[in-house]
Amino acid sequence: MEDGLIVVKVGGSEGIDYAAVARDAAALWKQGRRLVLVHGGSAETNRIAEALGHPPVFLEHPGGLTSRLTDRKTLEIFEMVYAGKMNKLIVELLQREGVNAVGLSGIDGRVFEGRRKKAVKYIENGKLKVRRDNLTGSVEKVNTELLNLLLGAGYLPVLTPPAISYEGEAMNTDGDTAAAQVAVQMQAEALLLLSNVPGLLRNFPDESSLIAEIPADRVEDFMNFAQGRMKKKVLGAADAVKGGVGRVVFGDARVEAPISKALAGAGTVVR
Amino acid sequence: MEDGLIVVKVGGSEGIDYAAVARDAAALWKQGRRLVLVHGGSAETNRIAEALGHPPVFLEHPGGLTSRLTDRKTLEIFEMVYAGKMNKLIVELLQREGVNAVGLSGIDGRVFEGRRKKAVKYIENGKLKVRRDNLTGSVEKVNTELLNLLLGAGYLPVLTPPAISYEGEAMNTDGDTAAAQVAVQMQAEALLLLSNVPGLLRNFPDESSLIAEIPADRVEDFMNFAQGRMKKKVLGAADAVKGGVGRVVFGDARVEAPISKALAGAGTVVR
Repeated sequence: MEDGLIVVKVGGSEGIDYAAVARDAAALWKQGRRLVLVHGGSAETNRIAEALGHPPVFLEHPGGLTSRLTDRKTLEIFEMVYAGKMNKLIVELLQREGVNAVGLSGIDGRVFEGRRKKAVKYIENGKLKVRRDNLTGSVEKVNTELLNLLLGAGYLPVLTPPAISYEGEAMNTDGDTAAAQVAVQMQAEALLLLSNVPGLLRNFPDESSLIAEIPADRVEDFMNFAQGRMKKKVLGAADAVKGGVGRVVFGDARVEAPISKALAGAGTVVR
Repeated sequence: MEDGLIVVKVGGSEGIDYAAVARDAAALWKQGRRLVLVHGGSAETNRIAEALGHPPVFLEHPGGLTSRLTDRKTLEIFEMVYAGKMNKLIVELLQREGVNAVGLSGIDGRVFEGRRKKAVKYIENGKLKVRRDNLTGSVEKVNTELLNLLLGAGYLPVLTPPAISYEGEAMNTDGDTAAAQVAVQMQAEALLLLSNVPGLLRNFPDESSLIAEIPADRVEDFMNFAQGRMKKKVLGAADAVKGGVGRVVFGDARVEAPISKALAGAGTVVR
């Protein structure tokens, strides 16, 4: 399995060193490592949405997860930042390192396909409400044929939300769970979820309370320790290990050689 | 040659009916026509650049051509609009029509590769000046291997600037001349340059003065009639016919079935 595919998800929060991610990805790629990158763009989307006078709104769901309210205008801003600015930034960084990267959103070639949520439940002022205008959904089907076509021809795929519904509508989707689906459906050796923390912390935000290892059959028990966006990473990890991915690592994307370090076991390893 | 490849460039000016372009492209694609789309995004880039407080600046070059001054911030806005908003809009429209489109910028897979202009001459207040910070260049090499890989697997490529320099830098490039290079290097049967005018007009903007046909060996003589952005389309047409493309049509993208109409000879035909 040492030459299996590695799926690397790089978050979109503040502090992430994309140049370091690209340098490390290029070094591994040139050693013959097969990689697929998946990235976010949340913090930059918030900034651009504010600047364009359409500030972000987040919905709080029963169970404690939150998500971006995605009306059509938000979706267009989301596409500008994720598929335009962030995706092309990462592709350009890889090209400068001599790697022939190809950036795709989930709607290109239906790379991330799934069911749109027709009704989204959320809590406002303590009351349960429902919205039907939210353009969101979850990835069920990854176009592994297209990814294998590109990998086989020597291209490094760089993937980003949005996803596409079975009816052909663009929709916001969570990048961590999309990356988990890529890892499962591509039968990846490992899934690395890199963000602006060193891993899962027992006492967030105390970085010295890092949880070094989680047994694969106990991932959901550790949900209590997950704060904010880390909740979706833990859910993604649970999906991935259930789906047969050998290991999942929550690693730090603020450091030099972030992919190599996570592969070597730095961060929180789920296996 | 009836089953040859058709390269369709859809401009980025006001008034273009992208839904009609997608419907027509889908109908032709389902009849077995091989297509590559190339698109612009100039008007929307101007709007977003204004909204983000970084208004567009155009340089006037010796000879009468103009181009967008592209500093790094402008390039990022350009990528957001061309590769994010416009590209994903067109891909989604095609997906809704049941065509598995794949959107790529010129930096993805080095689809549009060329030389960056290290120094750009322009005229300001009647004086010839030079700028060296402009991130622009022209497409010399099209990655036909990647385009054929996608076409062969049943994907319709939807291409957009920016291009990439030989050194791996993203750079603004003219979409019409990029489309002409795609047509030449893919040995296309025809290149359709669709915009918000019915074709080349003898007395711009009088639409009744449409020039119906231009002999291939006299394209440059007709440069006198080209106004504004049409100048680059005429130059693109000259490149394409010199490069062996059977015919070039300047057609109208504001009408129903714009691709079929241009293929049937509506507009200005260069052959």
